Amino acid sequence: MLGIADEEFIRGNVPMTKREIRILTIVKADIKRGDVVIDIGAGTGSLSIEAARIARQVFSIERNPEAIELIEQNAEKFNLNNIIIINAEAPNGLEAINKIDVVLIGGSGGKLKKILDTVDKRMKSGSRIVINCITIQTIVEALKYFNENKNYKYEAIQVQVNQLQHVGDFDMLKAANPICIITATKI
Amino acid sequence: MLGIADEEFIRGNVPMTKREIRILTIVKADIKRGDVVIDIGAGTGSLSIEAARIARQVFSIERNPEAIELIEQNAEKFNLNNIIIINAEAPNGLEAINKIDVVLIGGSGGKLKKILDTVDKRMKSGSRIVINCITIQTIVEALKYFNENKNYKYEAIQVQVNQLQHVGDFDMLKAANPICIITATKI
Amino acid sequence: MLGIADEEFIRGNVPMTKREIRILTIVKADIKRGDVVIDIGAGTGSLSIEAARIARQVFSIERNPEAIELIEQNAEKFNLNNIIIINAEAPNGLEAINKIDVVLIGGSGGKLKKILDTVDKRMKSGSRIVINCITIQTIVEALKYFNENKNYKYEAIQVQVNQLQHVGDFDMLKAANPICIITATKI
Amino acid sequence: MLGIADEEFIRGNVPMTKREIRILTIVKADIKRGDVVIDIGAGTGSLSIEAARIARQVFSIERNPEAIELIEQNAEKFNLNNIIIINAEAPNGLEAINKIDVVLIGGSGGKLKKILDTVDKRMKSGSRIVINCITIQTIVEALKYFNENKNYKYEAIQVQVNQLQHVGDFDMLKAANPICIITATKI
Repeated sequence: MLGIADEEFIRGNVPMTKREIRILTIVKADIKRGDVVIDIGAGTGSLSIEAARIARQVFSIERNPEAIELIEQNAEKFNLNNIIIINAEAPNGLEAINKIDVVLIGGSGGKLKKILDTVDKRMKSGSRIVINCITIQTIVEALKYFNENKNYKYEAIQVQVNQLQHVGDFDMLKAANPICIITATKI
Repeated sequence: MLGIADEEFIRGNVPMTKREIRILTIVKADIKRGDVVIDIGAGTGSLSIEAARIARQVFSIERNPEAIELIEQNAEKFNLNNIIIINAEAPNGLEAINKIDVVLIGGSGGKLKKILDTVDKRMKSGSRIVINCITIQTIVEALKYFNENKNYKYEAIQVQVNQLQHVGDFDMLKAANPICIITATKI
Repeated sequence: MLGIADEEFIRGNVPMTKREIRILTIVKADIKRGDVVIDIGAGTGSLSIEAARIARQVFSIERNPEAIELIEQNAEKFNLNNIIIINAEAPNGLEAINKIDVVLIGGSGGKLKKILDTVDKRMKSGSRIVINCITIQTIVEALKYFNENKNYKYEAIQVQVNQLQHVGDFDMLKAANPICIITATKI
Repeated sequence: MLGIADEEFIRGNVPMTKREIRILTIVKADIKRGDVVIDIGAGTGSLSIEAARIARQVFSIERNPEAIELIEQNAEKFNLNNIIIINAEAPNGLEAINKIDVVLIGGSGGKLKKILDTVDKRMKSGSRIVINCITIQTIVEALKYFNENKNYKYEAIQVQVNQLQHVGDFDMLKAANPICIITATKI
């Protein structure tokens, strides 16, 4: 059910969360059948798709028109009709959503604190936030938020996945950029 | 359902697959409701436990008496009665199992080729093998097997997870040993 | 000349920069025969020792009495009489030094900006600063400084070294924590 | 003296050892003023160049004509006349060299054992071999050699270097493939 191969997504030129990171993100988000999930900076929609196969409703927030089209195409390809795409730059677009169980943040456009403040008001005890950080400034800003805001317990990991590539009779390690995954649970 | 916290397992001194590796292993194994899973070198049983919450039947093969006791305790703690523990050194103990959907190999005691030959006869098209390698010799031996045996397609990754640790006002990265996860599917 | 084995240093319980990181740090610092080097947060003095074998003069700044004793012992062991130990918490202790060619920062005690401001006044064009960061907050603070202060060009790497350990007939990778090395050159 | 920037080398399309790996390789090789160094699979000659700035004589063995031209051009650019290029596929080309202090192996073309057997006869006690492995089969083969041949003590590390890249106001980690550096000293 979880862990769709990268090649199965319609991609274009929009960067996509790699399979292993997607798996860890979705599992750490602990998505349940009845959950409402927000995917912020949804990109190709790969996280939205994986989430929508488990959750009741997924809202994908994305500002890039090219990416929005990819999310639509992927939702259709995977036969999912529980994804609502919001064409906005978060935190815009979040006000209309009243109750959030899970927030996935793949891109925050430099507005992480505002986004966290906005979703926090819509999250009850037990709700989860999972942030995939590719910049160290985002890591530091997110950790600062969760350290100052005592309503959360959190953990964070940096993951680096090297793919073994078979070349001739040999296998070499091909690197992918490391990602930091921060998981916070509202107390 | 997937991704039990490390602390929840009863452990003792037996080494245990860390949560992120466990998550990736179980997802890559693509365990389905009706599946029969073999966990070879089961250790504390952490992979067996995660597998047994999804699969129909799990056989945990383990030679170390201390580890066997931990598997029993963990199966009880997590209320799972679909785990059968086989006190043997694989490939011993595998002959009695006729049909295998998934093989998880956490430890092979230097007998990887014999183990693969034995399980291969009991696997049909579409069955999966996931090997967690901590030594480079095991990686090379496993890749050799899957390259020579044309009945499998496979992929392999090296994963390194650094935990962010909060110390005073700072967060530092605490390393864990890298693991290689090899996933092979019988054609 | 460069790259003393870790075991050769007298250590005690003070954390020590590992050999590979020490090598990269000293080479990136581009220490020359006539140079004056400041080693801030000198710890066991391992960087001071390596630097003093090349440079004209090394000032080791350290606040921990146990560490100071180790620096003294190591300077004696390696027959170096061009190391002056300053028992202070940087930026204290830096005012007396007029001309600095190289600054090595292994520990900044949360006062990185003050330290950089203080050494900057004593550095001429072409002088180098190399910072070993183990916390992500220090990385972000250092990069912020070099991005805002247009008098520097810089580069930064995260290095992770896994040691291959021979166990029985096998070799496994044993991880060490990743370190970020930031190298800045005054324009 | 050591640690030439990657951009300073004339490169073409031939793969080149990255600066950090080059630094660690040369330091671990412990090259001294009077040494004779063999660089096997010399590629662009970046290791040969760094070695020739310290050693008495460097022999660069390379089979690819495009690479040989690059070595010549780089030797000229860095004003080094102590590099002799041998157009051969090692172990061919090694017979003429009687006394070897340091062997650098960047590429072995699948003939590592033969190469090691050949250089071994030309190395005296205290001589060093440093192998940069990009495939896991080469790691295993090299370790097997040094474990079976009791005339060597060795150590091995896997190094992964992520470059911090400044994009907008942010810094992200850009991965390079991990390399294994094996250092063996003849007893």
